Amino acid sequence: MRALDHPSQESISLPAVLAALSDPARLDVVRQLAASGGVVCGQFDALEHVSMSTLSHHLKVLRTAGVIHVEQRGKFRQHELRADDLESRFPGVLASVVATFGLDLPTSAQRAEPVLSR
Amino acid sequence: MRALDHPSQESISLPAVLAALSDPARLDVVRQLAASGGVVCGQFDALEHVSMSTLSHHLKVLRTAGVIHVEQRGKFRQHELRADDLESRFPGVLASVVATFGLDLPTSAQRAEPVLSR
Repeated sequence: MRALDHPSQESISLPAVLAALSDPARLDVVRQLAASGGVVCGQFDALEHVSMSTLSHHLKVLRTAGVIHVEQRGKFRQHELRADDLESRFPGVLASVVATFGLDLPTSAQRAEPVLSR
Repeated sequence: MRALDHPSQESISLPAVLAALSDPARLDVVRQLAASGGVVCGQFDALEHVSMSTLSHHLKVLRTAGVIHVEQRGKFRQHELRADDLESRFPGVLASVVATFGLDLPTSAQRAEPVLSR
């Protein structure tokens, strides 16, 4: 199975990111990802008035713009917000959009396993 | 002369703002406005590969999305970033975009006339 194409961090463009975020259905995908701590495996909750093929299109727009990373995991696809890449490239842009939903941008530190002291 | 239409602060929509900002020529207009302290009277510096009629279109997209306020001043039009309206509605969104140009978002406090003490 061929891996899906993703832009490198350096080649993520601001106009493309803003265009990807400029659609209510795609904003809802980003909201669900942020609410889930940055990663959703398998299905997104039903998006209003959006068919499965339209959802696929929206996920592709988010992926090719560099907003999400998508990877096949057995029967499911894992969708992950590229929070670190975007914050490093355009600090505050994705975070401020996610904040309009009353959510924080999940950082890699938050996603990492807790280090247990002995 | 009829005043130009502008959305009220409450009716500014995030997808419309992001769509308005998702074009390189419109981002350059926003950059020039931010670099000028928020207000440009008359002409913008030439935008690469953009005709006057295309510039007019871009300014209309920015105005109807609520990103800029445009007012006729005699022979010229005054263009102003709606920085306060946007910060109040979607904190950090416009500021983080303007920060990608190495600029601060001009606030109303910065634009106000200095108060002279006696």
